[in-house]
Amino acid sequence: MDKMRLLTPGPTPLPEEVRLTLAMDMVHHRKPGFTALLGEIQKDLQWLFETSQPVISLASSGSGAMTAAVTNLFKKGDQVLIIEGGKFGERWGNIASTYGIDTGIISVPWGKPITIGHIETALRQYPKVKGILVQASETSTGVLHPIKEIAEYLREKDILLVVDGISAVGISPLPMDKWGIDCLLTGSQKGLMLPPGLSFISLSERAWKRVEENRPREFYFNLLGERDKILKNSQTLFTPPINLLMGLHTCLGLFRQQGMENVFRRQWALTQMVRTAATAMGLTLLAEDHYTWGLTSIKLPEGVDGQAVLSCCAERYGIILAGGQDSLKGRIVRFGHMGHVDYGDVLAGIMALMHSIAACDGEVKTDNVLEQAMAAYEKASDEGYPEDFA
Amino acid sequence: MDKMRLLTPGPTPLPEEVRLTLAMDMVHHRKPGFTALLGEIQKDLQWLFETSQPVISLASSGSGAMTAAVTNLFKKGDQVLIIEGGKFGERWGNIASTYGIDTGIISVPWGKPITIGHIETALRQYPKVKGILVQASETSTGVLHPIKEIAEYLREKDILLVVDGISAVGISPLPMDKWGIDCLLTGSQKGLMLPPGLSFISLSERAWKRVEENRPREFYFNLLGERDKILKNSQTLFTPPINLLMGLHTCLGLFRQQGMENVFRRQWALTQMVRTAATAMGLTLLAEDHYTWGLTSIKLPEGVDGQAVLSCCAERYGIILAGGQDSLKGRIVRFGHMGHVDYGDVLAGIMALMHSIAACDGEVKTDNVLEQAMAAYEKASDEGYPEDFA
Repeated sequence: MDKMRLLTPGPTPLPEEVRLTLAMDMVHHRKPGFTALLGEIQKDLQWLFETSQPVISLASSGSGAMTAAVTNLFKKGDQVLIIEGGKFGERWGNIASTYGIDTGIISVPWGKPITIGHIETALRQYPKVKGILVQASETSTGVLHPIKEIAEYLREKDILLVVDGISAVGISPLPMDKWGIDCLLTGSQKGLMLPPGLSFISLSERAWKRVEENRPREFYFNLLGERDKILKNSQTLFTPPINLLMGLHTCLGLFRQQGMENVFRRQWALTQMVRTAATAMGLTLLAEDHYTWGLTSIKLPEGVDGQAVLSCCAERYGIILAGGQDSLKGRIVRFGHMGHVDYGDVLAGIMALMHSIAACDGEVKTDNVLEQAMAAYEKASDEGYPEDFA
Repeated sequence: MDKMRLLTPGPTPLPEEVRLTLAMDMVHHRKPGFTALLGEIQKDLQWLFETSQPVISLASSGSGAMTAAVTNLFKKGDQVLIIEGGKFGERWGNIASTYGIDTGIISVPWGKPITIGHIETALRQYPKVKGILVQASETSTGVLHPIKEIAEYLREKDILLVVDGISAVGISPLPMDKWGIDCLLTGSQKGLMLPPGLSFISLSERAWKRVEENRPREFYFNLLGERDKILKNSQTLFTPPINLLMGLHTCLGLFRQQGMENVFRRQWALTQMVRTAATAMGLTLLAEDHYTWGLTSIKLPEGVDGQAVLSCCAERYGIILAGGQDSLKGRIVRFGHMGHVDYGDVLAGIMALMHSIAACDGEVKTDNVLEQAMAAYEKASDEGYPEDFA
């Protein structure tokens, strides 16, 4: 009769207000009431993305928005650079090559961030690059790439910065206009505390010019058509996911009430909490300085079977964590603490992880771990996140 | 304080069981529990489509599934025939020409069905046709095209029959394998009594061969990739809309309990009810013999402002109906009675329509209309639908 606690990097638990909204009966999407709701959602999404440009909602998973970004911004034969430091970096590469785009891959070891030096070197090798495709947060490793620095470096160059913000928007700061991001996209099931099924994408002025020049042949992911609908009367090209949008309105209302600085502060504090716990347990963190907020990747002690640890957490403690992917499979635990998760859930998650590693014969310290974690949480809540993220 | 009643051809009102399922908290989509649910859903969808082939769920609106059908089944330069008797027939044409497919258009007057004669003539003009794209139900007019006859006619020809079943699947019979449909697709917000955001598509064996030969360059609408995931372990390529799929499982459970014959019988009886009411009011039906179940298009008396009628229905009676599109704008009312709608809702809808037309100075008979409608409903419920639909 224990509760299940979903501590994965998406989907995340949903606030009760959102769940009740999702249960509401249908309204018609082309009638004035829903059009007015879409208008409010548009304002809220621009506030969330920190942009003056329209934010387009698509009925798709986040990979749909990634596909839309590639097919609208680039043509067959265009050259792009992919920052590949994990599974989602690889996905950028797969999408781009599906559409005949010439992709230069900058590989960084899984767990490490990209540096400006890497990019400088790659640009010498690929001089005709029209865009750089990167994750803000690489969900497969829990690394936060330095988007602000990359944007600054690219500002004077005719190269579009395309950022997958799927596990970053609503979790850590990513002000689109201020930093100079050319394309920012996200999904509904991470920071936005909604089920999956909606994705969002916004383009800078110069990115829109590129789309207008390209005249992409896209029927479903037709960003110019969607923008026209928004500007004309806040509508969508195709039937939108009505109840997810109603839930989004509720979620963005909760964000408005709290203010994004407080949303980010909480995510930051929970991140400090889990990192402190892992270190106190004597475990190693995969990402050192540049780490995702809302997700912590923790290396398991040598010889411990990661799948057995996850199963023990789930079956004995009702704690659902994610494992490593590909080369990291069985070797790390990805501890999610994004969305509607609080310190109490995280305490339960830390305890479950600690006891499950021990049950799988892994070496793990247990002294005072929860106390140290809670102290780190309270300290980080009081102090807030460092200024250079703002 | 009156209730709002949604009587449009999608979205439709949702059963309470479905709404409560939609409100459930998230589970993780890659864990064994959800994989098992996807396995059950797969069996139910094959039962619903009456096919032995996998039915793929996509995170998209129905137009996404239409796009997937076109880009997977046909290549640039292929010739297809489009049955265009309304807005959604036009959509087939728009999708096909977006992707450089050579489209022959068979125009039929809005409100009329296609005939085999039309198709025979067109095939003489376009001898290299690789597929015929048609709506089972053309939602903009309420016409039911004769899919069974078309399928029979095409059986011995190397021409794929691609059927948009968006406002037909779960509403009127459309047995994919028995009739010989090569591609059947639908959306979640019509017969399936769910919010929009999910679409479904299934291909015949010969259609799959075509996709294998084409090797389409599709990242998001990658049907071969989705089929592999289903066959391997009931999973999806991308993060699926978790709560819509949970709601789908509930809905298909309701269908299983009732049996599809009874679901269809109810839709048939409600259709007879509304058609009888319209005739009793002295109004003309747009579609004569070949009419959609679950949606009735009714011509308004000359000179009556259709928008004013709809507004009166909505504002005075809380009845939400749909209007005509394009050339039919302002001239017809589309009265939806699909999904979770019963005779009581339809009685309210008929009454609202009758009084609103009168309020807009339209000529309309009111004598005994509801009694005649109810008698038609009860008779059709008892007798069931004609055998040639089975």
